[in-house]
Amino acid sequence: MTKENIAQLFQELQSDIIADLEKTDGLGVFISDNWVRAEGGGGKTCVIQNGNIIEKGGVNFSAVFGPLSNEVSTMMQVAPGDFYATGVSIVIHPHNPFVPIIHMNVRYFEMSSGEYWFGGGIDLTPHYIQETQAQAFHKHLKNVCDKHDPKFYSQYKEWADRYFFIPHRNETRGIGGIFFDRLNEKSAGKSKEEIHAFVMDVGRSFAPIYTQFMRDNYNKQFTEAHKRWQLLRRGRYVEFNLVYDKGTRFGLETGGRIESILMSLPQFASWEYAVEFDEESAEAHTLSLLKKGVDWV
Amino acid sequence: MTKENIAQLFQELQSDIIADLEKTDGLGVFISDNWVRAEGGGGKTCVIQNGNIIEKGGVNFSAVFGPLSNEVSTMMQVAPGDFYATGVSIVIHPHNPFVPIIHMNVRYFEMSSGEYWFGGGIDLTPHYIQETQAQAFHKHLKNVCDKHDPKFYSQYKEWADRYFFIPHRNETRGIGGIFFDRLNEKSAGKSKEEIHAFVMDVGRSFAPIYTQFMRDNYNKQFTEAHKRWQLLRRGRYVEFNLVYDKGTRFGLETGGRIESILMSLPQFASWEYAVEFDEESAEAHTLSLLKKGVDWV
Repeated sequence: MTKENIAQLFQELQSDIIADLEKTDGLGVFISDNWVRAEGGGGKTCVIQNGNIIEKGGVNFSAVFGPLSNEVSTMMQVAPGDFYATGVSIVIHPHNPFVPIIHMNVRYFEMSSGEYWFGGGIDLTPHYIQETQAQAFHKHLKNVCDKHDPKFYSQYKEWADRYFFIPHRNETRGIGGIFFDRLNEKSAGKSKEEIHAFVMDVGRSFAPIYTQFMRDNYNKQFTEAHKRWQLLRRGRYVEFNLVYDKGTRFGLETGGRIESILMSLPQFASWEYAVEFDEESAEAHTLSLLKKGVDWV
Repeated sequence: MTKENIAQLFQELQSDIIADLEKTDGLGVFISDNWVRAEGGGGKTCVIQNGNIIEKGGVNFSAVFGPLSNEVSTMMQVAPGDFYATGVSIVIHPHNPFVPIIHMNVRYFEMSSGEYWFGGGIDLTPHYIQETQAQAFHKHLKNVCDKHDPKFYSQYKEWADRYFFIPHRNETRGIGGIFFDRLNEKSAGKSKEEIHAFVMDVGRSFAPIYTQFMRDNYNKQFTEAHKRWQLLRRGRYVEFNLVYDKGTRFGLETGGRIESILMSLPQFASWEYAVEFDEESAEAHTLSLLKKGVDWV
Protein backbone atom coordinates (compact mmCIF):
# COMPACT_ATOMS: atom_id res chain seq x y z
CA MET A 1 0.00 0.00 0.00
CA THR A 2 2.26 2.80 -1.25
CA LYS A 3 1.27 6.45 -1.31
CA GLU A 4 1.21 6.23 -5.09
CA ASN A 5 -1.35 3.39 -4.92
CA ILE A 6 -3.50 5.43 -2.61
CA ALA A 7 -3.31 8.47 -4.88
CA GLN A 8 -4.11 6.32 -7.90
CA LEU A 9 -7.24 4.94 -6.24
CA PHE A 10 -8.29 8.43 -5.20
CA GLN A 11 -7.94 9.60 -8.77
CA GLU A 12 -10.09 6.71 -9.98
CA LEU A 13 -12.64 7.59 -7.31
CA GLN A 14 -12.73 11.13 -8.70
CA SER A 15 -13.41 9.85 -12.23
CA ASP A 16 -16.12 7.46 -11.07
CA ILE A 17 -17.90 10.14 -9.05
CA ILE A 18 -17.77 12.60 -11.93
CA ALA A 19 -19.27 10.00 -14.28
CA ASP A 20 -22.12 9.30 -11.84
CA LEU A 21 -22.84 12.98 -11.22
CA GLU A 22 -22.88 13.81 -14.92
CA LYS A 23 -25.18 10.90 -15.67
CA THR A 24 -27.62 11.94 -12.96
CA ASP A 25 -27.46 15.63 -13.80
CA GLY A 26 -28.17 14.86 -17.45
CA LEU A 27 -26.98 18.22 -18.76
CA GLY A 28 -23.95 19.60 -16.93
CA VAL A 29 -20.46 18.53 -17.88
CA PHE A 30 -17.42 18.92 -15.67
CA ILE A 31 -14.63 21.03 -17.01
CA SER A 32 -11.28 19.86 -15.77
CA ASP A 33 -8.08 21.73 -15.02
CA ASN A 34 -4.83 19.93 -14.45
CA TRP A 35 -2.54 22.04 -12.35
CA VAL A 36 1.03 21.70 -11.22
CA ARG A 37 2.39 22.77 -7.86
CA ALA A 38 5.75 24.47 -8.25
CA GLU A 39 7.18 22.80 -5.11
CA GLY A 40 6.01 19.30 -6.12
CA GLY A 41 2.96 17.43 -7.33
CA GLY A 42 -0.30 18.85 -8.59
CA GLY A 43 -3.91 17.99 -9.09
CA LYS A 44 -6.96 17.92 -11.23
CA THR A 45 -9.81 20.28 -10.40
CA CYS A 46 -13.13 19.40 -12.01
CA VAL A 47 -15.99 21.87 -11.86
CA ILE A 48 -19.56 21.73 -13.09
CA GLN A 49 -21.59 24.94 -13.44
CA ASN A 50 -25.17 25.50 -14.55
CA GLY A 51 -26.16 21.88 -14.96
CA ASN A 52 -29.72 20.64 -14.92
CA ILE A 53 -29.70 19.75 -11.21
CA ILE A 54 -26.33 21.06 -10.05
CA GLU A 55 -25.84 24.82 -10.06
CA LYS A 56 -22.18 24.65 -9.08
CA GLY A 57 -20.04 21.81 -7.87
CA GLY A 58 -16.44 20.76 -7.68
CA VAL A 59 -14.72 17.40 -7.49
CA ASN A 60 -11.06 17.99 -6.77
CA PHE A 61 -8.16 15.55 -6.73
CA SER A 62 -4.66 16.44 -5.64
CA ALA A 63 -1.40 14.73 -4.80
CA VAL A 64 1.21 17.17 -3.60
CA PHE A 65 4.58 16.67 -1.97
CA GLY A 66 7.83 18.35 -1.04
CA PRO A 67 9.52 19.77 2.02
CA LEU A 68 7.15 20.82 4.82
CA SER A 69 7.85 24.37 5.97
CA ASN A 70 8.62 24.85 9.66
CA GLU A 71 5.51 26.97 10.01
CA VAL A 72 3.28 24.23 8.61
CA SER A 73 4.97 21.42 10.51
CA THR A 74 4.35 23.36 13.73
CA MET A 75 0.72 23.99 12.72
CA MET A 76 0.29 20.27 11.99
CA GLN A 77 2.32 19.10 14.97
CA VAL A 78 4.60 16.82 12.97
CA ALA A 79 8.39 16.69 12.91
CA PRO A 80 9.97 18.53 9.96
CA GLY A 81 10.70 16.53 6.81
CA ASP A 82 9.17 15.85 3.40
CA PHE A 83 5.42 15.35 3.16
CA TYR A 84 3.09 13.67 0.70
CA ALA A 85 -0.62 14.53 0.73
CA THR A 86 -3.34 13.24 -1.54
CA GLY A 87 -7.11 13.43 -1.46
CA VAL A 88 -10.45 13.98 -3.11
CA SER A 89 -12.70 16.88 -2.08
CA ILE A 90 -16.25 17.50 -3.21
CA VAL A 91 -18.85 20.19 -2.65
CA ILE A 92 -22.11 20.30 -4.62
CA HIS A 93 -24.58 23.20 -4.63
CA PRO A 94 -27.82 22.28 -6.42
CA HIS A 95 -30.37 24.61 -8.05
CA ASN A 96 -33.44 23.25 -6.30
CA PRO A 97 -33.70 24.25 -2.61
CA PHE A 98 -35.04 20.77 -1.81
CA VAL A 99 -31.85 19.09 -3.00
CA PRO A 100 -29.31 19.31 -0.16
CA ILE A 101 -25.78 20.67 -0.37
CA ILE A 102 -23.22 17.91 0.16
CA HIS A 103 -19.55 17.75 1.01
CA MET A 104 -17.23 14.76 0.93
CA ASN A 105 -13.51 14.48 1.50
CA VAL A 106 -11.07 11.59 1.74
CA ARG A 107 -7.38 12.22 2.27
CA TYR A 108 -4.07 10.60 3.06
CA PHE A 109 -0.98 12.25 4.53
CA GLU A 110 2.49 10.80 4.92
CA MET A 111 5.81 12.14 6.20
CA SER A 112 9.25 10.99 5.07
CA SER A 113 9.72 9.75 8.65
CA GLY A 114 7.05 7.11 7.95
CA GLU A 115 4.35 8.77 10.03
CA TYR A 116 1.03 8.70 8.17
CA TRP A 117 -2.67 9.11 8.61
CA PHE A 118 -6.02 9.06 6.80
CA GLY A 119 -8.82 11.56 7.23
CA GLY A 120 -12.15 12.40 5.68
CA GLY A 121 -15.88 12.54 6.03
CA ILE A 122 -19.21 13.25 4.43
CA ASP A 123 -21.74 15.77 5.66
CA LEU A 124 -25.09 16.95 4.35
CA THR A 125 -26.51 20.49 4.46
CA PRO A 126 -30.18 20.45 3.49
CA HIS A 127 -31.67 23.92 2.98
CA TYR A 128 -34.86 22.32 4.28
CA ILE A 129 -34.33 19.37 6.58
CA GLN A 130 -36.51 16.39 5.64
CA GLU A 131 -36.47 13.85 8.45
CA THR A 132 -36.70 10.80 6.18
CA GLN A 133 -33.80 12.04 4.07
CA ALA A 134 -31.71 12.80 7.16
CA GLN A 135 -32.42 9.34 8.55
CA ALA A 136 -31.58 7.62 5.26
CA PHE A 137 -28.34 9.59 5.05
CA HIS A 138 -27.19 8.70 8.54
CA LYS A 139 -28.28 5.07 8.22
CA HIS A 140 -26.30 4.74 5.01
CA LEU A 141 -23.22 6.15 6.73
CA LYS A 142 -23.76 3.90 9.75
CA ASN A 143 -23.86 0.86 7.46
CA VAL A 144 -20.61 1.92 5.80
CA CYS A 145 -18.98 2.41 9.22
CA ASP A 146 -20.39 -0.77 10.76
CA LYS A 147 -18.80 -2.88 8.02
CA HIS A 148 -15.43 -1.76 9.40
CA ASP A 149 -15.94 -1.19 13.11
CA PRO A 150 -19.06 -1.02 15.30
CA LYS A 151 -17.59 2.00 17.13
CA PHE A 152 -16.84 4.13 14.05
CA TYR A 153 -20.27 5.58 13.36
CA SER A 154 -21.00 6.98 16.80
CA GLN A 155 -17.45 8.32 17.17
CA TYR A 156 -17.27 9.93 13.76
CA LYS A 157 -20.84 11.19 13.85
CA GLU A 158 -20.03 13.05 17.06
CA TRP A 159 -16.80 14.34 15.52
CA ALA A 160 -18.80 15.72 12.57
CA ASP A 161 -21.21 17.45 14.96
CA ARG A 162 -18.25 19.15 16.63
CA TYR A 163 -16.45 19.99 13.41
CA PHE A 164 -19.29 21.25 11.19
CA PHE A 165 -20.39 23.85 13.68
CA ILE A 166 -20.68 27.65 13.33
CA PRO A 167 -20.01 29.04 16.82
CA HIS A 168 -21.00 32.63 15.99
CA ARG A 169 -24.43 31.40 14.83
CA ASN A 170 -24.66 28.64 17.43
CA GLU A 171 -25.78 26.39 14.57
CA THR A 172 -24.44 23.24 12.99
CA ARG A 173 -23.75 23.67 9.28
CA GLY A 174 -26.34 21.04 8.43
CA ILE A 175 -27.32 17.62 9.71
CA GLY A 176 -23.70 16.51 10.04
CA GLY A 177 -22.60 13.07 8.94
CA ILE A 178 -19.21 11.58 9.75
CA PHE A 179 -15.80 13.19 10.15
CA PHE A 180 -12.48 11.63 11.12
CA ASP A 181 -8.85 12.67 11.03
CA ARG A 182 -5.39 11.28 11.74
CA LEU A 183 -6.48 7.65 11.60
CA ASN A 184 -3.62 5.16 11.71
CA GLU A 185 -2.69 1.94 13.55
CA LYS A 186 -2.09 3.80 16.77
CA SER A 187 -5.22 5.95 16.82
CA ALA A 188 -7.70 3.56 15.18
CA GLY A 189 -6.31 0.16 16.22
CA LYS A 190 -6.48 -1.11 12.64
CA SER A 191 -3.92 -1.90 9.99
CA LYS A 192 -3.16 0.62 7.29
CA GLU A 193 -4.95 -1.63 4.78
CA GLU A 194 -8.05 -1.79 6.96
CA ILE A 195 -8.19 1.97 7.39
CA HIS A 196 -7.65 2.47 3.69
CA ALA A 197 -10.52 0.09 2.93
CA PHE A 198 -12.77 2.09 5.25
CA VAL A 199 -11.77 5.40 3.69
CA MET A 200 -12.38 4.06 0.18
CA ASP A 201 -15.81 2.80 1.25
CA VAL A 202 -16.64 6.26 2.57
CA GLY A 203 -15.54 7.76 -0.74
CA ARG A 204 -17.52 5.22 -2.76
CA SER A 205 -20.65 5.82 -0.70
CA PHE A 206 -20.82 9.41 -1.91
CA ALA A 207 -22.25 8.85 -5.40
CA PRO A 208 -25.06 6.40 -4.50
CA ILE A 209 -26.13 8.60 -1.57
CA TYR A 210 -26.12 11.90 -3.39
CA THR A 211 -27.42 10.85 -6.80
CA GLN A 212 -30.42 9.38 -4.96
CA PHE A 213 -31.06 12.71 -3.23
CA MET A 214 -30.69 14.49 -6.57
CA ARG A 215 -33.23 12.24 -8.30
CA ASP A 216 -35.67 12.38 -5.37
CA ASN A 217 -35.80 16.15 -5.15
CA TYR A 218 -34.65 17.99 -8.26
CA ASN A 219 -38.13 18.14 -9.69
CA LYS A 220 -39.91 19.46 -6.60
CA GLN A 221 -41.84 22.69 -6.98
CA PHE A 222 -40.39 25.67 -5.17
CA THR A 223 -41.25 29.33 -4.71
CA GLU A 224 -39.28 32.57 -4.48
CA ALA A 225 -39.48 32.22 -0.69
CA HIS A 226 -37.78 28.82 -0.85
CA LYS A 227 -35.10 30.25 -3.10
CA ARG A 228 -34.52 33.18 -0.74
CA TRP A 229 -34.01 30.79 2.15
CA GLN A 230 -31.65 28.65 0.08
CA LEU A 231 -29.45 31.68 -0.61
CA LEU A 232 -29.41 32.59 3.08
CA ARG A 233 -28.39 29.04 4.01
CA ARG A 234 -25.64 29.23 1.42
CA GLY A 235 -24.48 32.42 3.14
CA ARG A 236 -24.00 30.35 6.29
CA TYR A 237 -22.09 27.79 4.25
CA VAL A 238 -19.75 30.56 3.08
CA GLU A 239 -19.34 31.73 6.68
CA PHE A 240 -18.36 28.24 7.82
CA ASN A 241 -15.93 27.63 4.99
CA LEU A 242 -14.16 30.99 5.12
CA VAL A 243 -14.07 31.36 8.90
CA TYR A 244 -13.73 27.83 10.30
CA ASP A 245 -13.05 25.11 7.74
CA LYS A 246 -9.53 23.87 8.44
CA GLY A 247 -8.84 22.76 4.88
CA THR A 248 -9.88 26.13 3.49
CA ARG A 249 -7.96 28.17 6.08
CA PHE A 250 -4.90 25.97 5.62
CA GLY A 251 -5.09 26.42 1.86
CA LEU A 252 -5.47 30.19 2.13
CA GLU A 253 -2.58 30.48 4.59
CA THR A 254 -0.18 28.24 2.73
CA GLY A 255 -0.84 29.68 -0.71
CA GLY A 256 -2.64 26.76 -2.36
CA ARG A 257 -4.37 27.05 -5.73
CA ILE A 258 -7.07 29.52 -4.85
CA GLU A 259 -9.64 28.50 -7.48
CA SER A 260 -9.46 24.89 -6.28
CA ILE A 261 -9.71 25.82 -2.60
CA LEU A 262 -12.70 28.12 -3.10
CA MET A 263 -14.59 25.89 -5.54
CA SER A 264 -16.63 25.00 -2.42
CA LEU A 265 -18.36 28.39 -2.48
CA PRO A 266 -21.81 28.62 -4.08
CA GLN A 267 -22.55 30.52 -7.28
CA PHE A 268 -25.02 32.74 -5.41
CA ALA A 269 -25.35 33.43 -1.70
CA SER A 270 -27.20 36.00 0.35
CA TRP A 271 -27.17 37.86 3.65
CA GLU A 272 -30.07 39.80 5.11
CA TYR A 273 -30.18 41.64 8.38
CA ALA A 274 -31.89 39.87 11.29
CA VAL A 275 -34.29 37.75 9.24
CA GLU A 276 -37.12 36.24 11.20
CA PHE A 277 -39.42 33.37 10.34
CA ASP A 278 -42.73 32.30 11.73
CA GLU A 279 -42.41 29.68 14.46
CA GLU A 280 -44.55 27.27 12.46
CA SER A 281 -42.58 27.71 9.24
CA ALA A 282 -40.43 25.10 7.52
CA GLU A 283 -37.49 27.48 7.90
CA ALA A 284 -37.89 27.65 11.68
CA HIS A 285 -38.27 23.89 11.76
CA THR A 286 -34.96 23.48 9.93
CA LEU A 287 -33.26 25.96 12.27
CA SER A 288 -34.53 24.03 15.28
CA LEU A 289 -32.69 20.92 14.02
CA LEU A 290 -29.36 22.61 13.34
CA LYS A 291 -27.80 21.48 16.59
CA LYS A 292 -25.36 18.91 17.85
CA GLY A 293 -26.37 15.54 19.17
CA VAL A 294 -29.48 14.79 17.10
CA ASP A 295 -29.80 11.00 16.86
CA TRP A 296 -30.90 10.45 13.25
CA VAL A 297 -30.49 6.71 13.27
CA MET B 1 -12.72 65.25 26.37
CA THR B 2 -14.23 62.33 28.26
CA LYS B 3 -15.05 58.98 26.72
CA GLU B 4 -18.73 59.83 27.15
CA ASN B 5 -18.25 63.02 25.11
CA ILE B 6 -16.56 61.06 22.39
CA ALA B 7 -19.32 58.46 22.33
CA GLN B 8 -21.96 61.21 22.28
CA LEU B 9 -20.36 62.84 19.25
CA PHE B 10 -20.10 59.46 17.50
CA GLN B 11 -23.77 58.86 18.10
CA GLU B 12 -24.61 62.26 16.61
CA LEU B 13 -22.41 61.42 13.64
CA GLN B 14 -24.41 58.24 13.13
CA SER B 15 -27.70 60.19 13.10
CA ASP B 16 -26.36 62.81 10.71
CA ILE B 17 -25.06 60.22 8.28
CA ILE B 18 -28.32 58.29 8.35
CA ALA B 19 -30.27 61.45 7.59
CA ASP B 20 -27.99 62.25 4.63
CA LEU B 21 -28.14 58.73 3.25
CA GLU B 22 -31.93 58.52 3.52
CA LYS B 23 -32.32 61.91 1.84
CA THR B 24 -30.08 60.88 -1.03
CA ASP B 25 -31.57 57.41 -1.39
CA GLY B 26 -35.06 58.92 -1.51
CA LEU B 27 -36.85 55.65 -0.74
CA GLY B 28 -35.04 53.45 1.77
CA VAL B 29 -35.47 54.00 5.47
CA PHE B 30 -33.12 52.71 8.13
CA ILE B 31 -34.57 50.37 10.68
CA SER B 32 -32.82 50.70 13.99
CA ASP B 33 -32.14 48.16 16.72
CA ASN B 34 -30.96 49.22 20.13
CA TRP B 35 -29.08 46.41 21.78
CA VAL B 36 -27.58 45.90 25.18
CA ARG B 37 -24.37 44.05 25.93
CA ALA B 38 -24.75 41.84 28.98
CA GLU B 39 -21.26 42.68 30.27
CA GLY B 40 -21.69 46.46 29.82
CA GLY B 41 -22.80 49.02 27.28
CA GLY B 42 -24.61 48.46 24.03
CA GLY B 43 -25.27 50.02 20.70
CA LYS B 44 -27.63 51.02 17.97
CA THR B 45 -27.51 49.12 14.70
CA CYS B 46 -29.24 50.85 11.80
CA VAL B 47 -29.79 48.97 8.58
CA ILE B 48 -31.29 49.94 5.24
CA GLN B 49 -32.41 47.26 2.79
CA ASN B 50 -33.92 47.55 -0.69
CA GLY B 51 -33.74 51.32 -1.00
CA ASN B 52 -33.79 53.16 -4.29
CA ILE B 53 -30.00 53.41 -4.57
CA ILE B 54 -28.80 51.33 -1.62
CA GLU B 55 -29.46 47.60 -1.76
CA LYS B 56 -28.15 46.93 1.73
CA GLY B 57 -26.25 49.11 4.15
CA GLY B 58 -25.54 49.43 7.81
CA VAL B 59 -24.58 52.34 10.03
CA ASN B 60 -23.66 50.97 13.41
CA PHE B 61 -22.90 52.81 16.65
CA SER B 62 -21.68 51.12 19.79
CA ALA B 63 -20.24 52.03 23.17
CA VAL B 64 -19.28 48.99 25.17
CA PHE B 65 -17.28 48.59 28.37
CA GLY B 66 -16.37 46.19 31.13
CA PRO B 67 -13.49 44.00 32.16
CA LEU B 68 -11.16 42.96 29.35
CA SER B 69 -10.64 39.20 29.29
CA ASN B 70 -7.04 37.98 29.52
CA GLU B 71 -7.36 36.45 26.09
CA VAL B 72 -8.45 39.73 24.53
CA SER B 73 -5.92 41.85 26.41
CA THR B 74 -3.18 39.54 25.11
CA MET B 75 -4.61 39.78 21.58
CA MET B 76 -4.69 43.57 21.85
CA GLN B 77 -1.37 43.82 23.67
CA VAL B 78 -2.68 45.95 26.52
CA ALA B 79 -2.37 45.40 30.25
CA PRO B 80 -5.45 43.82 31.83
CA GLY B 81 -8.11 46.12 33.29
CA ASP B 82 -11.45 47.64 32.32
CA PHE B 83 -11.95 48.84 28.77
CA TYR B 84 -14.26 51.31 27.06
CA ALA B 85 -14.72 51.15 23.28
CA THR B 86 -16.95 53.29 21.11
CA GLY B 87 -17.25 53.77 17.39
CA VAL B 88 -19.27 54.15 14.23
CA SER B 89 -19.00 51.57 11.42
CA ILE B 90 -20.54 51.81 7.99
CA VAL B 91 -20.71 49.60 4.93
CA ILE B 92 -22.97 50.40 1.97
CA HIS B 93 -23.74 48.04 -0.92
CA PRO B 94 -25.61 49.83 -3.73
CA HIS B 95 -27.86 48.31 -6.39
CA ASN B 96 -26.17 49.88 -9.40
CA PRO B 97 -22.77 48.36 -10.27
CA PHE B 98 -21.47 51.85 -11.08
CA VAL B 99 -22.04 53.09 -7.56
CA PRO B 100 -19.07 51.94 -5.45
CA ILE B 101 -19.20 50.01 -2.18
CA ILE B 102 -17.95 52.14 0.70
CA HIS B 103 -16.75 51.48 4.21
CA MET B 104 -16.07 53.96 6.99
CA ASN B 105 -15.12 53.45 10.60
CA VAL B 106 -14.14 55.77 13.44
CA ARG B 107 -13.40 54.40 16.88
CA TYR B 108 -12.02 55.22 20.29
CA PHE B 109 -10.61 52.81 22.84
CA GLU B 110 -9.64 53.51 26.44
CA MET B 111 -8.34 51.39 29.30
CA SER B 112 -8.92 52.06 32.98
CA SER B 113 -5.15 52.58 33.21
CA GLY B 114 -5.59 55.75 31.13
CA GLU B 115 -4.09 54.28 27.97
CA TYR B 116 -6.22 55.27 24.95
CA TRP B 117 -6.19 55.47 21.20
CA PHE B 118 -8.26 56.43 18.16
CA GLY B 119 -8.56 54.47 14.96
CA GLY B 120 -10.52 54.51 11.77
CA GLY B 121 -10.54 55.02 8.06
CA ILE B 122 -12.53 55.19 4.86
CA ASP B 123 -12.03 53.03 1.83
CA LEU B 124 -13.82 52.71 -1.48
CA THR B 125 -14.50 49.53 -3.46
CA PRO B 126 -15.78 50.38 -6.92
CA HIS B 127 -17.06 47.40 -8.89
CA TYR B 128 -15.78 49.31 -11.90
CA ILE B 129 -12.93 51.68 -11.18
CA GLN B 130 -13.49 55.12 -12.71
CA GLU B 131 -10.26 57.09 -12.60
CA THR B 132 -11.94 60.46 -12.06
CA GLN B 133 -13.97 59.10 -9.17
CA ALA B 134 -10.91 57.47 -7.62
CA GLN B 135 -8.97 60.70 -7.91
CA ALA B 136 -11.80 62.77 -6.43
CA PHE B 137 -12.07 60.31 -3.54
CA HIS B 138 -8.40 60.38 -2.69
CA LYS B 139 -8.13 64.16 -3.14
CA HIS B 140 -11.02 64.64 -0.76
CA LEU B 141 -9.32 62.42 1.83
CA LYS B 142 -6.03 64.20 1.30
CA ASN B 143 -7.70 67.54 1.98
CA VAL B 144 -9.22 66.20 5.18
CA CYS B 145 -5.84 64.87 6.28
CA ASP B 146 -3.86 67.93 5.24
CA LYS B 147 -6.00 70.14 7.47
CA HIS B 148 -4.55 68.23 10.41
CA ASP B 149 -1.07 67.15 9.38
CA PRO B 150 0.76 67.17 6.04
CA LYS B 151 2.12 63.70 6.75
CA PHE B 152 -1.21 62.01 7.52
CA TYR B 153 -2.47 61.35 4.01
CA SER B 154 0.56 59.54 2.65
CA GLN B 155 1.01 57.54 5.86
CA TYR B 156 -2.61 56.52 6.18
CA LYS B 157 -3.10 55.93 2.47
CA GLU B 158 -0.22 53.46 2.57
CA TRP B 159 -1.67 51.87 5.69
CA ALA B 160 -5.00 51.39 3.88
CA ASP B 161 -3.18 49.75 0.95
CA ARG B 162 -1.59 47.30 3.37
CA TYR B 163 -4.75 46.68 5.39
CA PHE B 164 -7.42 46.35 2.67
CA PHE B 165 -5.55 43.63 0.86
CA ILE B 166 -6.62 40.06 0.01
CA PRO B 167 -3.40 38.00 0.01
CA HIS B 168 -4.97 34.84 -1.44
CA ARG B 169 -6.18 36.86 -4.45
CA ASN B 170 -3.15 39.14 -4.54
CA GLU B 171 -5.63 42.01 -4.92
CA THR B 172 -6.46 45.07 -2.91
CA ARG B 173 -10.12 45.14 -1.85
CA GLY B 174 -10.71 48.29 -3.86
CA ILE B 175 -8.92 51.58 -4.41
CA GLY B 176 -8.06 51.94 -0.73
CA GLY B 177 -8.40 55.27 1.04
CA ILE B 178 -7.04 55.95 4.49
CA PHE B 179 -6.63 53.68 7.51
CA PHE B 180 -5.10 54.43 10.90
CA ASP B 181 -5.05 52.76 14.30
CA ARG B 182 -3.78 53.35 17.82
CA LEU B 183 -3.35 57.08 17.38
CA ASN B 184 -2.50 58.95 20.57
CA GLU B 185 -0.04 61.61 21.76
CA LYS B 186 2.83 59.16 21.66
CA SER B 187 2.21 57.64 18.25
CA ALA B 188 0.82 60.68 16.40
CA GLY B 189 2.59 63.54 18.19
CA LYS B 190 -0.71 65.41 18.67
CA SER B 191 -2.90 66.15 21.65
CA LYS B 192 -5.95 64.02 22.30
CA GLU B 193 -8.15 66.94 21.21
CA GLU B 194 -6.26 67.30 17.95
CA ILE B 195 -6.55 63.61 17.13
CA HIS B 196 -10.22 63.65 18.03
CA ALA B 197 -10.78 66.61 15.72
CA PHE B 198 -9.08 64.70 12.90
CA VAL B 199 -11.13 61.57 13.52
CA MET B 200 -14.39 63.56 13.56
CA ASP B 201 -13.41 65.23 10.30
CA VAL B 202 -12.84 61.81 8.75
CA GLY B 203 -16.26 60.71 9.98
CA ARG B 204 -17.94 63.87 8.70
CA SER B 205 -16.32 63.52 5.29
CA PHE B 206 -18.20 60.27 4.68
CA ALA B 207 -21.62 61.65 3.80
CA PRO B 208 -20.53 64.39 1.35
CA ILE B 209 -18.18 61.98 -0.41
CA TYR B 210 -20.57 59.07 -0.72
CA THR B 211 -23.83 60.89 -1.43
CA GLN B 212 -22.03 62.56 -4.35
CA PHE B 213 -21.01 59.16 -5.73
CA MET B 214 -24.57 57.91 -5.25
CA ARG B 215 -26.06 60.86 -7.18
CA ASP B 216 -23.44 60.67 -9.93
CA ASN B 217 -23.95 56.99 -10.69
CA TYR B 218 -27.21 55.52 -9.50
CA ASN B 219 -28.95 56.24 -12.75
CA LYS B 220 -26.34 54.79 -15.09
CA GLN B 221 -27.47 52.07 -17.46
CA PHE B 222 -26.13 48.63 -16.74
CA THR B 223 -26.43 45.16 -18.24
CA GLU B 224 -26.61 41.62 -16.86
CA ALA B 225 -22.87 41.36 -17.46
CA HIS B 226 -22.25 44.38 -15.22
CA LYS B 227 -24.47 42.88 -12.54
CA ARG B 228 -22.66 39.55 -12.75
CA TRP B 229 -19.35 41.30 -12.22
CA GLN B 230 -20.76 43.29 -9.31
CA LEU B 231 -21.79 40.05 -7.56
CA LEU B 232 -18.34 38.56 -8.12
CA ARG B 233 -16.69 41.67 -6.65
CA ARG B 234 -19.01 41.40 -3.66
CA GLY B 235 -17.81 37.81 -3.27
CA ARG B 236 -14.30 39.21 -2.84
CA TYR B 237 -15.66 41.68 -0.30
CA VAL B 238 -17.11 38.77 1.68
CA GLU B 239 -13.77 36.96 1.47
CA PHE B 240 -11.92 39.96 2.85
CA ASN B 241 -14.36 40.58 5.67
CA LEU B 242 -14.68 36.97 6.84
CA VAL B 243 -11.04 35.98 6.41
CA TYR B 244 -9.00 39.10 7.16
CA ASP B 245 -10.94 42.04 8.58
CA LYS B 246 -9.72 42.48 12.14
CA GLY B 247 -12.93 44.02 13.43
CA THR B 248 -15.00 41.18 12.01
CA ARG B 249 -12.68 38.43 13.25
CA PHE B 250 -12.45 40.07 16.66
CA GLY B 251 -16.22 40.28 16.86
CA LEU B 252 -16.69 36.65 15.83
CA GLU B 253 -14.08 35.43 18.29
CA THR B 254 -15.27 37.47 21.25
CA GLY B 255 -18.96 36.76 20.78
CA GLY B 256 -20.19 40.19 19.71
CA ARG B 257 -23.69 40.78 18.36
CA ILE B 258 -23.54 38.74 15.20
CA GLU B 259 -26.16 40.63 13.18
CA SER B 260 -24.31 43.91 13.80
CA ILE B 261 -20.90 42.44 12.96
CA LEU B 262 -22.08 40.85 9.72
CA MET B 263 -24.22 43.76 8.53
CA SER B 264 -21.19 44.49 6.30
CA LEU B 265 -22.03 41.53 4.06
CA PRO B 266 -23.95 42.19 0.84
CA GLN B 267 -27.50 41.02 0.19
CA PHE B 268 -26.29 39.01 -2.81
CA ALA B 269 -22.82 37.79 -3.71
CA SER B 270 -21.45 35.30 -6.18
CA TRP B 271 -18.56 32.96 -6.85
CA GLU B 272 -17.75 31.37 -10.19
CA TYR B 273 -14.87 29.06 -10.99
CA ALA B 274 -11.86 30.60 -12.73
CA VAL B 275 -13.69 33.43 -14.48
CA GLU B 276 -11.75 35.10 -17.25
CA PHE B 277 -12.28 38.43 -18.94
CA ASP B 278 -11.02 39.85 -22.16
CA GLU B 279 -7.82 41.87 -21.74
CA GLU B 280 -9.53 44.92 -23.18
CA SER B 281 -12.59 44.68 -20.95
CA ALA B 282 -13.61 47.10 -18.22
CA GLU B 283 -13.42 44.18 -15.76
CA ALA B 284 -9.79 43.46 -16.66
CA HIS B 285 -9.06 47.18 -16.40
CA THR B 286 -10.46 47.26 -12.88
CA LEU B 287 -8.48 44.16 -11.89
CA SER B 288 -5.29 45.77 -13.19
CA LEU B 289 -5.79 48.65 -10.74
CA LEU B 290 -6.47 46.51 -7.66
CA LYS B 291 -2.94 46.79 -6.35
CA LYS B 292 -1.01 48.61 -3.69
CA GLY B 293 0.82 51.86 -4.29
CA VAL B 294 -1.34 53.49 -6.96
CA ASP B 295 -0.91 57.26 -6.64
CA TRP B 296 -4.44 58.58 -7.20
CA VAL B 297 -3.68 62.15 -6.17
